[in-house]
This record gives sequence, structure tokens and C-alpha cells, in this order.
Amino acid sequence: MEPFVLDERLARDSQSILKLGLCDLRLAHDSRWPWLILVPQRSGVSEVFDLTPLDQAMLTFEQVTVAAALKKVTGATKINIAAIGNVVRQLHVHVVARFEDDPNWPGPIWGHGSPIAHSDDTFNALKSRMLEALQ
Amino acid sequence: MEPFVLDERLARDSQSILKLGLCDLRLAHDSRWPWLILVPQRSGVSEVFDLTPLDQAMLTFEQVTVAAALKKVTGATKINIAAIGNVVRQLHVHVVARFEDDPNWPGPIWGHGSPIAHSDDTFNALKSRMLEALQ
Repeated sequence: MEPFVLDERLARDSQSILKLGLCDLRLAHDSRWPWLILVPQRSGVSEVFDLTPLDQAMLTFEQVTVAAALKKVTGATKINIAAIGNVVRQLHVHVVARFEDDPNWPGPIWGHGSPIAHSDDTFNALKSRMLEALQ
Repeated sequence: MEPFVLDERLARDSQSILKLGLCDLRLAHDSRWPWLILVPQRSGVSEVFDLTPLDQAMLTFEQVTVAAALKKVTGATKINIAAIGNVVRQLHVHVVARFEDDPNWPGPIWGHGSPIAHSDDTFNALKSRMLEALQ
């Protein structure tokens, strides 16, 4: 089995904040919405059904844990969870906090406008609060 | 615990094709893309982390099974799986077959244009093929 190598675009558009049992938990470089990305550290996988049943269960556990933590940290109106991957084929799951006054509510975040980078301060504050909520 | 009652908009925009252990499996009234919706038959649930751990595992199993069947039936380039729910708060998971020549590739299906109804023939053909693949 080939070693896991992170997709170049995921590497560019987000930064790792924690390694979980299965996934690399990453925070997107986009301050428009609190946006986390879970990347299962498995090679050659683009669909959830390509994962083994055990990895599927792990992914569920990790995404539910991250989603609940993101809700707690942000007080979001709704958490959006999605595995899309039409552009980046390496399996990755978006976990995003949505608010009624955000830039595309109630529409989807994908394909909407352009990212607005975090400052170091807002990135690190969100990272710290997520790590604390996941302890 | 209150009995499960399907959200009115989900009832209007899709039709049940199969009852699974946890979910009502529904086919959307939109022929632009093969579009299934899984609705966990639990009352008062809007986020995956509101489900019990057992129901979370069931939902994962059912959505992976449906996604693999949809891939097999359609030969889609990519399957999109998402729990969004910004408009309809009752928890529901979209499982959609995407193609490079579909109306919004590689953008998301949500919030794009207006539904184009199936004919009875195309609806029933997709339903039959899905049920066969799920046997």
C-alpha cells in the first residue's frame, strides 16, 4: 500500500491543527466561515465507500466529534458536513459553522466567491478554541 | 419521545423509495442529477451529533451503502454526500451522482437554478435500478 500523501491543493488551502486516529484535522485559510477539513490519512481513496468498514466508523466518530466541538466553540446556527471532492479527489470532509448573517446563507459555501485569509490572530484563536473543545 | 414526522418540504421535494433500518430513502423530484436523500426517522434531530452513537453508525452504514449503489447504477464521476440543512432543519443527508457534463459541475447542486421534474419513466427507472442495486 502506498504511503499517504496530502493533496497539494488541500495543503495550500488549509493547515493541520491536529492528527486524529484516522484523519488529519485541518483549518481552512478562509475567515468567511469557521471551516474545518478532515482528511483520512489513507492513500488512493476518493469515496467514503473506498474506506474499510473500520475506517468508515472511525471517520464517522471523528467527524461527529469535530462537528459537536465546532458547534460548541462557535454557537453556529447550523453545522454543514460534506464530502464533495469534485475538484480535489482525495477524500476529505468539510465541517463548517454557518450563521444567518454569513456571506452565502442559506446557500452552500462551495463555489461561492473567493477566500478571505485569516489574520494570524483569528486563525490561532479558532485553532486554540477547537483544540480546547476537543480535549 | 415524539413520533417521527417527515418535514413538509422534504415530503414535497422527494418521494420515498425504500425504508431502511434507520432512514427513509427518498428520490428527489429533480432530473438534473440522480439525487437521493436519507432521512433518519427520529424526531427532533437536526445535527448528526444529536443522534445516538448507534444511530450514527447506522446512518454511516446506510449512506455508504446507498452511495456505493448510486455509483454502480450511474457510473458517476463523483458521489457527493452532504448534511447541510440550512433551510430544512430536520436531519437529512444528500447522496448525489455528479458528472462532468452536469448543469453545475464542479460546483455544488444546492442553490443552483431550479429543479427539472422527472417524467414518470425516468423516475421509475432510477428507482428500480437503485432498488435492484440495494438488494
